[in-house]
Amino acid sequence: MHHTFLNRLTEEYNSDLDHAGINGERIASRLAELSKIGSEENGGLTRIGYSMEEKQAKELVISWMKEAGLSVVMDGAGNVFGRLEGQKDSAAVMSGSHLDSVPNGGHFDGPLGVLSALEVVEAWKDTGYTPPAPFEVAIFTDEEGSRFKTGLTGSRSFMGKVSNEELDHLRDESGKTFDEVIEAYGSNRESYLEAHDKSKDLKLFVEVHIEQGTVLEKHNEPAGIVNGIAGPSWLEVSFKGKAGHAGNTPMENRKDPVIAAGIFVHEIESLPRKVSQTAVATVGKMNVIPNGVNVIAQEVNLMVDIRDITEETRDKLLEMIHQKAEEIAAKRGIEVTWNINTRIKPLPIDPDLQGKLAAIMEKQGIKPVYIPSGAGHDAMIIGGEVPVAMIFTRSKDGISHNPEEWSSLNDCVNTVHVLKRFVEEIMEED
Amino acid sequence: MHHTFLNRLTEEYNSDLDHAGINGERIASRLAELSKIGSEENGGLTRIGYSMEEKQAKELVISWMKEAGLSVVMDGAGNVFGRLEGQKDSAAVMSGSHLDSVPNGGHFDGPLGVLSALEVVEAWKDTGYTPPAPFEVAIFTDEEGSRFKTGLTGSRSFMGKVSNEELDHLRDESGKTFDEVIEAYGSNRESYLEAHDKSKDLKLFVEVHIEQGTVLEKHNEPAGIVNGIAGPSWLEVSFKGKAGHAGNTPMENRKDPVIAAGIFVHEIESLPRKVSQTAVATVGKMNVIPNGVNVIAQEVNLMVDIRDITEETRDKLLEMIHQKAEEIAAKRGIEVTWNINTRIKPLPIDPDLQGKLAAIMEKQGIKPVYIPSGAGHDAMIIGGEVPVAMIFTRSKDGISHNPEEWSSLNDCVNTVHVLKRFVEEIMEED
Repeated sequence: MHHTFLNRLTEEYNSDLDHAGINGERIASRLAELSKIGSEENGGLTRIGYSMEEKQAKELVISWMKEAGLSVVMDGAGNVFGRLEGQKDSAAVMSGSHLDSVPNGGHFDGPLGVLSALEVVEAWKDTGYTPPAPFEVAIFTDEEGSRFKTGLTGSRSFMGKVSNEELDHLRDESGKTFDEVIEAYGSNRESYLEAHDKSKDLKLFVEVHIEQGTVLEKHNEPAGIVNGIAGPSWLEVSFKGKAGHAGNTPMENRKDPVIAAGIFVHEIESLPRKVSQTAVATVGKMNVIPNGVNVIAQEVNLMVDIRDITEETRDKLLEMIHQKAEEIAAKRGIEVTWNINTRIKPLPIDPDLQGKLAAIMEKQGIKPVYIPSGAGHDAMIIGGEVPVAMIFTRSKDGISHNPEEWSSLNDCVNTVHVLKRFVEEIMEED
Repeated sequence: MHHTFLNRLTEEYNSDLDHAGINGERIASRLAELSKIGSEENGGLTRIGYSMEEKQAKELVISWMKEAGLSVVMDGAGNVFGRLEGQKDSAAVMSGSHLDSVPNGGHFDGPLGVLSALEVVEAWKDTGYTPPAPFEVAIFTDEEGSRFKTGLTGSRSFMGKVSNEELDHLRDESGKTFDEVIEAYGSNRESYLEAHDKSKDLKLFVEVHIEQGTVLEKHNEPAGIVNGIAGPSWLEVSFKGKAGHAGNTPMENRKDPVIAAGIFVHEIESLPRKVSQTAVATVGKMNVIPNGVNVIAQEVNLMVDIRDITEETRDKLLEMIHQKAEEIAAKRGIEVTWNINTRIKPLPIDPDLQGKLAAIMEKQGIKPVYIPSGAGHDAMIIGGEVPVAMIFTRSKDGISHNPEEWSSLNDCVNTVHVLKRFVEEIMEED
């Protein structure tokens, strides 16, 4: 499939996009080289955090970084930074993403962000440009968190957001502890926790990532501007009714929690638009107890995933949804209990940075489309303390975490042009 | 618990109900004796069809039948018939039920019907009454069908409704075939299938059973008249939408099958009353795929249990529900598939027989309450060819198939009085 992967990338490529030092074929061949490490027979990719495959992928990119003239360091968490010195020794601009994947995932989620940042360096090298400020290409480790069912552990350790206690509780699928895994990877807990001390004086972090949604496809644009990274809240709701025989309980005598849950799921649908244009709420997990064909259920347990790019609107939506559950339960004489079991702070993105990206895109003939990122990204973690921007690349059918994940080379290269101009403008600012 | 069971039965007993030869204490002590066979520590009962416990329970009742002067036969299916000859050798009236239980079930579902029929014989014996026609007390085997995940196999074999082919496919939980089980029980397949040849010339079959619902409790009456036995239809419905990331898919771009299923479940609630006062429809089983917190579901599979006491109204309701699913799916751009995987003929009960029961109840100070039986019973099988009546006894909180199953002794004895007068009137008719 690797030959096909490269062919598929390049066959529709418009080589007019090769200018300002950016080279589509180089990006394509590197995506194709990376796609071989951890590839699955069905075309998918399995490159779990802290696996030998993730390490091998990093080593390949490190070799490219060195060829491009970057000085490379890896911290105790396994994060890789390739640094290009600038004309001045000021705060650096950083760009990058990750190289790990979910099991049987795709080839763009992560690698595109790393290779886009590296391509900016290659373009500068090819055009003899020295940036005004230092630039770093970053590979954050274990973004997907598939190893320990966590997430963003590389960027979190970089930002000093992992505690000793959290590490104590981790076990991978085979039962290995965090210490066993990190030592096999060539580091240890002490160095892992010290990764934060190596963190940089950063002016800005910018991440290119595939959209994993269909907004750009609908607008028919190659790239878009992330206007915020939504933090999810997970509301656990349990409706408890009265179990009974499906044949022996007249409709009028029922307290059926399945119907309460049905009304609830339907009512939720119209609530996000009451708080903002970017809010979403989803019931994707629902369990009926006892789940028998001829038994009126005793209980329905469900989870509502609630997101928005500002905490205020997200929490307002959470409250509306919670009130709706109480209202439905009260009306139907059913008991409801609830619990908020996850609450991650959303990260709104500075409108000035969004405006800068918009101006660059317009010059490139791309109509600016603003998209909330529903998924978490390394940029969300770094954004807690450093100005952050994100650029999305159109995803075919919005599919990701799947072998079918795809972005056309034209879209990828268009995105790299936006990234390069953006980094240059940020550096040229002062 | 057995001492407590008997005490609990007798402590609130109103001994004014002991007349016409019927003796509450005898019924109570027999219920208590039976409750010991297969009893569980939590107060529940496990007396699976074709188990040694079921056999032992039959043997105990057979000993009582013989003491009461009945001549007893057991057919090849394990059904037991205790016969009292009448003044004339005409067609017999039969009454009875079953002694098997579901795993960890209760002590009234089945035994009450057998002991009520036997108590009629005891009352006649005590008052020196010889009935005009023969009377048979029946114990049908394996009514619950817990052994092979079937149901009503004793009454079905008695009515010639079990095929060789069906038996070929049966396996119990331990993997035993039907032949292995029936031979260990002391019979064999040939004799089992010949049970039908032993079937009787019956004028009527009448079954006493606990209500397993709360209609009588709501009307505050000890016993009620079954106006039909509902045959279930099971409609399997599958809504297929478009999976997506819960964070990256705007509300407007979704095809969420969970919402379609939610609307469907809610809309179903009001449909039964559009066809009749006795129809019911229940979604008790629903599975969301893939059932992930942050994933818009791909698919929801659910089962609708649809019942009524006439086939015409039941099928009309089935059609309305099916149409509703199509309508919701079409409106939301979602795919729906469906399949009817069970369709059992309902058994309406002759209004003349219901009227006879009503007149008897009124004389006893019981206001007639008419109740559809949502669950299947041996009477439903026999009713295919023989006139059938059923009397329900009030169930505490409607609970059954559970250790909490309970009917007060007063309610049980009131029901036996109704049964006795009913059998006498049927026999005295010609």
